[in-house]
Order: sequence, then structure tokens, then C-alpha cells
Amino acid sequence: MTDTSKIQDIKFMGDDFLLNSEYAKILYHGYAEKLPIIDYHCHINPKEIYDNIRFENITKVWLGGDHYKWRLLRANGVEEKYVTGNGSDHDKFIKFAETLERCIGNPVHQWSHLELKKYFGFKGSLNSETAEEVWNLCNEKLQKEPEKMSARGIIEQSNVDVVCTTDDPVDSLEWHEKIAQDATMKTRVYPAWRPDKAVNIELDGFKEYIGKLEKVSGIKIDSLEELFKALDKRLEHFKEHGCSVADHGLTDLPERCDFTLQDADAVLKKALSGAKVSDHEANIYKLAVTDYLAGKYTEMNWVLQFHYGCKRNNNRKMFAAIGPDTGYDAILGSDNGARLAELLDMLASNDRLPKTILYSLNPNDNAVIETIMGCFQDSSARSKIQHGSAWWFNDNRDGMEAHLKSLANEGVLGNFVGMLTDSRSFLSYTRHEYFRRILCNLIGNFVQNGEYEWNEKILGRIVSDISYNNAKEYFGF
Amino acid sequence: MTDTSKIQDIKFMGDDFLLNSEYAKILYHGYAEKLPIIDYHCHINPKEIYDNIRFENITKVWLGGDHYKWRLLRANGVEEKYVTGNGSDHDKFIKFAETLERCIGNPVHQWSHLELKKYFGFKGSLNSETAEEVWNLCNEKLQKEPEKMSARGIIEQSNVDVVCTTDDPVDSLEWHEKIAQDATMKTRVYPAWRPDKAVNIELDGFKEYIGKLEKVSGIKIDSLEELFKALDKRLEHFKEHGCSVADHGLTDLPERCDFTLQDADAVLKKALSGAKVSDHEANIYKLAVTDYLAGKYTEMNWVLQFHYGCKRNNNRKMFAAIGPDTGYDAILGSDNGARLAELLDMLASNDRLPKTILYSLNPNDNAVIETIMGCFQDSSARSKIQHGSAWWFNDNRDGMEAHLKSLANEGVLGNFVGMLTDSRSFLSYTRHEYFRRILCNLIGNFVQNGEYEWNEKILGRIVSDISYNNAKEYFGF
Amino acid sequence: MTDTSKIQDIKFMGDDFLLNSEYAKILYHGYAEKLPIIDYHCHINPKEIYDNIRFENITKVWLGGDHYKWRLLRANGVEEKYVTGNGSDHDKFIKFAETLERCIGNPVHQWSHLELKKYFGFKGSLNSETAEEVWNLCNEKLQKEPEKMSARGIIEQSNVDVVCTTDDPVDSLEWHEKIAQDATMKTRVYPAWRPDKAVNIELDGFKEYIGKLEKVSGIKIDSLEELFKALDKRLEHFKEHGCSVADHGLTDLPERCDFTLQDADAVLKKALSGAKVSDHEANIYKLAVTDYLAGKYTEMNWVLQFHYGCKRNNNRKMFAAIGPDTGYDAILGSDNGARLAELLDMLASNDRLPKTILYSLNPNDNAVIETIMGCFQDSSARSKIQHGSAWWFNDNRDGMEAHLKSLANEGVLGNFVGMLTDSRSFLSYTRHEYFRRILCNLIGNFVQNGEYEWNEKILGRIVSDISYNNAKEYFGF
Repeated sequence: MTDTSKIQDIKFMGDDFLLNSEYAKILYHGYAEKLPIIDYHCHINPKEIYDNIRFENITKVWLGGDHYKWRLLRANGVEEKYVTGNGSDHDKFIKFAETLERCIGNPVHQWSHLELKKYFGFKGSLNSETAEEVWNLCNEKLQKEPEKMSARGIIEQSNVDVVCTTDDPVDSLEWHEKIAQDATMKTRVYPAWRPDKAVNIELDGFKEYIGKLEKVSGIKIDSLEELFKALDKRLEHFKEHGCSVADHGLTDLPERCDFTLQDADAVLKKALSGAKVSDHEANIYKLAVTDYLAGKYTEMNWVLQFHYGCKRNNNRKMFAAIGPDTGYDAILGSDNGARLAELLDMLASNDRLPKTILYSLNPNDNAVIETIMGCFQDSSARSKIQHGSAWWFNDNRDGMEAHLKSLANEGVLGNFVGMLTDSRSFLSYTRHEYFRRILCNLIGNFVQNGEYEWNEKILGRIVSDISYNNAKEYFGF
Repeated sequence: MTDTSKIQDIKFMGDDFLLNSEYAKILYHGYAEKLPIIDYHCHINPKEIYDNIRFENITKVWLGGDHYKWRLLRANGVEEKYVTGNGSDHDKFIKFAETLERCIGNPVHQWSHLELKKYFGFKGSLNSETAEEVWNLCNEKLQKEPEKMSARGIIEQSNVDVVCTTDDPVDSLEWHEKIAQDATMKTRVYPAWRPDKAVNIELDGFKEYIGKLEKVSGIKIDSLEELFKALDKRLEHFKEHGCSVADHGLTDLPERCDFTLQDADAVLKKALSGAKVSDHEANIYKLAVTDYLAGKYTEMNWVLQFHYGCKRNNNRKMFAAIGPDTGYDAILGSDNGARLAELLDMLASNDRLPKTILYSLNPNDNAVIETIMGCFQDSSARSKIQHGSAWWFNDNRDGMEAHLKSLANEGVLGNFVGMLTDSRSFLSYTRHEYFRRILCNLIGNFVQNGEYEWNEKILGRIVSDISYNNAKEYFGF
Repeated sequence: MTDTSKIQDIKFMGDDFLLNSEYAKILYHGYAEKLPIIDYHCHINPKEIYDNIRFENITKVWLGGDHYKWRLLRANGVEEKYVTGNGSDHDKFIKFAETLERCIGNPVHQWSHLELKKYFGFKGSLNSETAEEVWNLCNEKLQKEPEKMSARGIIEQSNVDVVCTTDDPVDSLEWHEKIAQDATMKTRVYPAWRPDKAVNIELDGFKEYIGKLEKVSGIKIDSLEELFKALDKRLEHFKEHGCSVADHGLTDLPERCDFTLQDADAVLKKALSGAKVSDHEANIYKLAVTDYLAGKYTEMNWVLQFHYGCKRNNNRKMFAAIGPDTGYDAILGSDNGARLAELLDMLASNDRLPKTILYSLNPNDNAVIETIMGCFQDSSARSKIQHGSAWWFNDNRDGMEAHLKSLANEGVLGNFVGMLTDSRSFLSYTRHEYFRRILCNLIGNFVQNGEYEWNEKILGRIVSDISYNNAKEYFGF
């Protein structure tokens, strides 16, 4: 082994993790670090918040439903038994630790250690040698401090101001209601409207879904007009529960074409009759529904999010075995630039373009998105159209830096609404810490490089805005 | 506020701005800084040069016609009244200063400060707090030193050797002629030939444009043959005025296909009859005219520029309100690689491939362009085919570094013809400074990193060549 | 000339070339540097190894068949006479030195200097001033130390454990056999199976090729079944000679569609009848043959490589003059993401997905490839599906760093099988040095940045694995 005496001691994931200039340190520790979190897009189950669930062991927390980690296990040659199968929790954890050791540079490696540090007080490195120690330490913590390590305890420790879950229009929102009525809960938990099942007419189960929507809205849906009425009722229901955010998830954006509401009505009727609609028909229907809903969001001053560019369920064999959302999705490579420009123009032409956040899973789209959204900004909000934070496979240091630089180069970085977890896990709030460190480091670099004056007042404000204030203002929380 | 005593003083946009190694400083200050400028592509109005226009205030200079700045204002939620509307010049400037403060990392922030420093002697930061001070300072300078701050005064201060404007084939070039006859004007001002209106047959106004071309050439254009004759006459006219550069702007490059001149002739006749031509017909016509003109450029030893990959006028509502070139253009995402390869091969096969500079607005095209152009280099010039400097939305530090690295990785960086302003403003010559700093920094990094020997003689020559000598030789100025 | 006294001495391409942290230096010098090389994909001629060829002069070594260098010469305006023509070897070398001087930042500049240093002991810079000195020095070395500078001498100096050449199914493998029987040869030289001529049915010469395959296999090929039998025999022949690697080269990947073996059989028969097959027919045939061969590789535990995304022979005029592989190829811009996902799924669904390495020539494909391959990992091998090292035009520091970061962000970097030369030259083993330095630097940066703990034991293992052990295990060498 080499003499390492000349190596200076760098604390692994220490206080100044990712902060490579004095400017960055001042901005992070003086401004970003202590601000509350607005988590305006996540997949947490509101029932689990209400029930204040507890975790038996670290495997339940980490490996119960996290397909990021499952993919790494499989890429390390681990048998499915220890991924989603019936291996013991202990063995699954050990396999994960062995895998993590080899995942140098992977965001899961960093997120895991941020979580170990913040929630479990473990400051070392999790690897094949420390796996047993960490297994015991985490489980002890979970058992000895059940309140602090419960769903609500974690949210409280994490200084979370607002959480927006992701909810279907047919959802009763009963858990949101119960949370709202619970005076012990300080964090506001709002639903977000995700109408994908009402939009994606080509998918199996559309007709059954419309049946559910009929039931919950009390409206017989046999035309587009009635569908819109039913959606209106549900929008109102969501609004009553504090919702101000919508989210549309699509493989590709719909492609603008000439159509009438009569055309879209005919497509809906065809689908409801049980017939299969063509790609062109589905596109017409999607345009019509998107246009209608965007108009409603505009009226209600909601925010519309578009998530697109994901090719799902690529491994049919594994899909048959274990179903969707198990780690078999990928980036769709095709370009959606022209569709995006035409879609936003359609909405703007109809005065139905609300505040909108764009997320493409394809990192090559960054510059295209920035330049298109620059064509639709107006005085109704500061950076009314936003390029959402680096999404999913891009949610790592390189991807986040690329996104932030792209935004800085083409628009007004100071107006960015910042980070979200997009997560199913209660421990993921450290992703906000990760983002804020990267943000402060980038801004510190601009100063270091002579590209922006060192003006702590202004820079502190920019950092605080992106970390918290902009989201508060933009969403109206 | 934090104790900032441990922060070392970095001069914001100081003398060593962007120069992060001693090598870079020596190369910039010893070589690049003092060389004259060849601005071989810009959109300055030659009449304004001849008339030696003066500027009433800084808003007129900066915000009169600059869609880069307009986009930022809109992205900051500023009302159109203060963008292109009838707000007062003072108020527009204040809104711009407030916006600029939030544009950390944006090239407009840096360009603006380079201009304030060089032309107005202001070394501070323009933001909401200093806006009034800068407003007064700039306007005082414009009024107290009218000669120095006139169009010609600025050009002279900027050490500009050659300016190539952008001109339509029907242009009389009277202002170029007058400038040429004015012995007090040291900078050479040449026209550049931009035949887009004669090429883009599918656009409105094509027929009317051909009418203008008939008038100015004295040739009745009722066939492709006569069109070529008319263009020949205008090419001769441009050549007599010192022109040696052509520029073709297209959304997508034309797609190679089998066609005869008879086919193209029929398309022209159809368009002149007032009928609408199909996409395929337009493509044939464009190929034929491009092939013909490229042949002429080859004969005359001109340089051909291709600008492509821009999706224009994306916001139809704003287009209806305030017209084109007002900040509603974006990057076209689609790939033009195969078209580019086929187009260059068509020209090369016909011995009609002149010196050519390629500009795509899509930054994802960098590597594709480099590798295609590498297939068409020959001994008729050093790097006969060039990849033009990072264009428009890419004209920022990240975009320029990506372009230069791409060029270095795939070709001969030392032969690059360097920077251009592409600007409508007389103050934009500082973009050459910006480019030269980035170039010297990159080269300094190569040395720092052990990738190139520190040989000041050779490196000074490379830097001088890219800053000035290569363009002089390539364009024959 | 400026005073350069304040410049610290950085050794050009010195011992710590590209190693920018103490961590990187320890990892490179302590672990990566001394490991043997497994060159699992190259284009070396096995006969030249057996014959132990010698080189008359440095031009023969460097400029005899290297289209990377030819492209640079042409981009520097050098006449074809001094590229592939009948210029003297001396003059060609001088032209190359003059060109190289201007190629700052180009990988050929760095590779050339690594080769000069390692094999010729020249530690200076090759440029127009030192060209004669280097010419003499190299030629003297080639003449005075013929054993050391022979094909085998260079391989031995380079510490090469395994070489896989690239071979056609009809190849007799006689030279591999002779090498295997030669006890003086320590390096193992295996064939790799490249069945492109049997796959690419649309290309000229397919029918003649099948004739050769008939002859060498002794099987009359008049149906798909017989073709498969003939291929089986050749696979067995390759296996007997130690082959465990296949390689498929395609412009675009085949597009999944519904087909039967009868359909593919009909296409083969059509092609053998001399008729031209349509794009769709060719696609069906390619799917069928790829599926069959992949199944065989799976059975035999071979590794399948896919090379795609190259647009070849773009300059038809030069193709007519000097043929293929002379420097006129480029990156194909089009996206193959969906095809890749569907192809891997087809193979996985049929239980015919072997260990597979993916190489796209388009650097924009990085993230798409990572996320798709993440959908097909399983417990049959550690990172069964691999993203191959940055290929051809991407094989430079930026491209390699982008590839490694992409891999780190989306997968398990520690399982990467590492570098290959892809070269026709015996001197290219320094590319492994180049790669290992870049790898160690990247890993050092992760530690420096606090993203991974400094644990020399673990990091030394990761570096050793990527440099050597992973390939040994993955290929079974």
C-alpha cells in the first residue's frame, strides 16, 4: 500500500461537501442550508403520512420500493431473489452494501450516504466491510427512536413546509382531508392533479377508468362535454383540498394538428364503445383534453407540469413477472422540440397557457427546451414557463449542473423554482440538500471566475429564492 | 451577514477575467488582446456606419433592437410595455437592470458588463441598486463624447479591421460605396451576399422578390436560366464592392434527391405563376440554386456560410402583434447530419464545393458536424470546411468551450477562423474579447494539464492565428 | 516575448500527465500502471504478429494506414500526395509534424507523444522545428533495436496479456493457429467473430460471400437453415481457436418487427437469386440472423459487441479514387434508442441475450444507452450488458470522461470492462495508458470532491478491476 501521508484529509461527504469555493460555503451555510423545503412534486402516499408509518429495518426503508437501487443490484449481478424476491432483509442489505461499494460516482451512492448521515448519524462509508455495522446501527436507531424515525418524524426533522403528492382525479383525497384536520401536523400536504388515465386514451383500461370517473363525479360520461363536466367537478374537489398543481405524464408530447371538438368527441365515443383508436385519433383526443384542462388551470392559476420522454417497461419478460415501476424504464431518445413549441403555441393562441414546468427525460433536450420556453414568457409571472429540475436519470451532479447551466445561459436563473424529490421515500429530502449544495457551488464558481460580482446581499437572495422563495411565490403556497 | 474576511479579492470582470492559468494570461495579454478584429458576419446597417449615427441614451443603444435582452425581460415577468412598447427609456433601463441582476451566468450579463467597462469606463456591477448611477453615467458619456461614442468612434476604438455586413442580392450597396469612397474611414466595410429570399421559394413574397430582382438586374426572369443570369449580375455587383462571403440561412438543409435542372425550372415557373409549390418541389429548387451558387462561389473563391437549425416565430400571437426577429425563435431539435453529408457530397461531386463554414443552432450537432466536415477537407485551403463559432443561443462560455473542444478533438483547432459578432449593435465587438479570453483559457488549460508543451512561440502563433490571421488568410482580406 | 518566470514548470506529458490529484497519482502509479493489457477488440493483422514484422521508418508505422492522421493532414490543407499518395516517407513525416503542431487538444497529438515517449524515448514535443530530429531519432531506434521494435517486441514491451483480432467467419485462422503453436509467444492471440458480410444482405457482394461460406463450410447454402448450419460450423472452428467474442457492425440497428423464419428464409433466397431485397426485407433477415447468432453466443457464453451509428464513405469522389477506410466516415446523427431497446428485448424474450457490449458512434446516445442497458441486467454476469468505451471519434479525453461519467451516473462503474485499442497499429497500446490515467483522474476527483471515501484498498481494487480484472472475468480469459 502506498504512503498516503501527503494526502490532505478531505472529509467524505463532510460539511463542505461539493462546496469548492469560499463563496459557495458562505452561500450554502449562510443562506440555503436552513431554509424550509417545498416539495412540489413527489410520489409519497398520503395515507402513510396520516398513519405516521414506522419502519422495521433499513431494508424496508431503502429497498422496499426503490427501483433506482434495484437497477444497481441487477447491474451488479445480484439475483432477483435479493432484489424484489423473497431473500431476507438482512441479506438484501448486505448485497446492496456490496453493490454500493462499486457504484462510485452514482447518485444513489451519494444520496444513501446523505441519508445515513442526516437521519442515522453515520458519517462513514457503507461498503462490504461496514455493511453489518451499518445494518445494526440503522435498525437500532429505527427501534430506539420510533417517533423521530416515523414518517412524520422524518418530515419534521427535514424542515418541510409543503408536500404535494401525486393523485388521480378519481381519488377521494380522504387522507389529505384527515391530515389537514390534524392540528399536530405542521407540514402542509396538498394533492396534485395527475389526469394521465383520463388523457392516455390508447392505453388498456381507459374505458374502465372512465367508469370510475362517472361514479365519483356522478356524471354519465357519453360525450366530451360530459367528460369535461366530470373533470370540472373533480378539479373543484382537488381545489377544495388545496391543490394548485397539475401534472401530465406522456411518452411523447401530442402533435399539433387541425381538429375540432367534434372530432375529439367522436374519438372518445369510439373508445368508450370498446373500439381501438388509431394513433392519430388518440393524438386529437389528447390535444383536446390537454387544451381544455390547460384552460382550466389558467383560470384557476394552477401550475401545469409536463413530464415526457420516457420509454417504459422495456423488458417484457420482467414486466410479465413483476409488473411496472420495477426498474425497466429508460430515456426515449426521440426529439420532442417541434411538438413542444407547437403545443405551447396552441395553448398561448387560445389564451390557455398557464404557468408551466417542462421536464424531458432526454438530457439532449436541455437547450431546445430553454429556447422554446423563452418564446412563451410574459408578464403574468416571473419566468412563467420553467424548465423543471433534472429529472430521474438526470438527477445527479452532472445532470443537475448541466440543467442549471443551460438555464443560466438561456434564461433567468434567479427565477428558477428549484428542487423537488420526485420520490416515494420519506428519506429523500436530502436531495434538496444535494441540489442546494450544487447550486451554491455553481454560483460560487461564477463569482470565482469573475463572471458575477461578489455581492453577498444579492447572491444570498438569489440562492434563497431558488431554494425556497421562488417556489412559494410561483405556486402560491 | 457572514464574515467574508477569508474571501480573497477577485476583481469582477477584471483584467484576468476568465484567464485561469498563467499560460492563459500570457497568451491573452501578450498576443490576443491587441490584435485587430475581422468581423466577417454581422447584421450592422451600413447606412448607420456611413451616417455615423449617435445614441441619445443607453436604452437606445442596448434595448432598441436586441431580442436577446427582450427575452430576458419577458422571462423576468416585465410587461411588454417596457420591452418593445412605449415605456420611457429610463424605465426600460431600470427594468433591465433589475432583470440583469437575476441573470447570473447569462452571457448577456457578461456582455453588458464588458461593454460598460470598455466603452463607458464603468467597472462595477449593474443591478437594481446601481441602475440610476449607470443610467446617468452612460448617458453623460454618450453626450459628452459624441465622436468617440458614435458608430464610427466605437468601431475605431474597437480596432476593427474588416466588417462584413449582411445584404440582399437586390441591395444597391450604395452605402458600402460611399463608405469606400470616404478616406476618413479606416475600417474596411464589405457587403456579404445573403440570397435567402431567392432560395426559400416556399415563403410568402417570393414572387414579389423575383420582381425586385428583375428590376435591379434588368433581366426578365421567366426561367431558371434567366434567374441564374440575374444572380450572376448581382454577384458581379457584390464582387465589385469587395464581397467575398455568402451566407445561406435555412430551417433545415435541403435533402439530396435526384433531379434535373428542368425539374427545378418547372418548380420556379410554378411558383412564378402564383401556385403553391410542394415541399418536395421546394427542395428540388433549393438544391438546384444552392448547387449553382456554390459553383459560382467556388469560381470566385468566395466563402459560403450555412446557418441552419432555427425554428422561427414560435409564438404566433406575438408574431401577429410585433412581427419577426423580436425574440420568439428557438433551436430546431431535428438532426441535419445526413442532409449535411449528402449536400456537401453533391457539391464536391460537382466540383462546386467552395470554402464553407457550417453553423447549426443545435448544440447536439457539434460532433456530427466535425466528423462530416472532416470528410471534405482538401488541399485548396487550410481547413477549407470550417465549423463556425458557437451561434446565437450557444454564444456563451459553455457553448463556446464545447464548440472549441469539439473542434480540437476532431480537427485542427489551430486553423479555426475564429469569432464573429453576428450582431446588430456597434458595442458587440467585446464579444471578440470574450471569445479570445475563452480561447486563451482553453489553450492554457491544455498546457496546464500536460496536453501540450509550453512553447510560447508556437502557442502565441496559434492564438494569433485563431484571433486574426486565419480569418485574414481564409477570406482573403 | 513575455517574462515567463512566474510560470511553474509542468512536464509536458510527464509522469503525472492527466493526474490532477494526489489520489489519482496513487491510484495510477500504485495500481493501474503496471497491470497487463487485455485488448479485446482491435484490427491488428494476426499474420503480422506471426511474421513479427519490422518497420522501415516512422512514416511506415504511423502514416501507412492510419485514417485518423490522414484526416488531420487533409484538414491542414496538405496535398493528397503526402497523405495516401506517392510523396516520400520523409516528406510525409515533415508534413505530419507541421500539422500536429496545430492540432492542439486533438487525441492524435497526445497519442503520438505517448508513443514517442514510450517506444522511442523521446520526451519533447514533435512540431515543425523538431521534425527532422524526431525523424532521425525514430528511424535510428527502428534500425538499431529491430527486435524490440518489431511487432512482437512492441507487444511484449507493452505487457499485453490477450489480443483479440477481428476476423471473418470464412477466415481459416491459420495465423492464429501458428501463433498458438509458437511457444516463444507469451501473449495470447484470439480471433473475434465478425459476421457482417453474412448479416448485411443489402450490400454488394453478399451472394459472392455466401459462396465463400459454402466453400469453407462444405455446406450448400440454399436456405436459412443451411446458412445457420454453415455458420454453426464456423462458430465451432472459431471456438476451437479460442474465440469467445463476436462483433456486429451496422449503420443503424435492425428495427424490431413481426416476422417468421419462413419470411427470413424467403429474403435470403431472393438475395441468393440475385434480386435486390427491400429495406424491410433486409431488416427481417438481419433480425433473424442476429437472433440466431445471439442465441448461439448465449449457449457458448460468448460476448456480443454491437458497433452502430457510423455513416461511411461520405465523399463519393474520394471513395472512387482511394476506396473505403481512408478517412471519409462520420457520425450518423440519427437516434437508435428505440431500436436498441426493442432489439435487446427481442433477444431477452427469446432467452438469447448473451453478454453484450454496446458502442454507438453518436456521443449524444450515452444516457439513452445507459438507461436502456439498465433494463436488461441480470444475475448471469456482473454488468452483463456493458456500454463500450468511447468509440473512434469519441476516443479522446472529453469523450472518455463523458462516457465514464455517464456510466457512473446510471450504472455500476466498478464493473466496467474497460479499454480496447480498436487499432490497426502495434503502437496503440498507449491508448490503454491514456484511458487508465483518465480513469484514475476521474476517480481521484470523486474523492477530492467528497463524493467517495478515500479508501485505498477499495479504490485500488476498483481501478485494477476496470483496468484488467473485469475484462479477464467477463470474457473468461
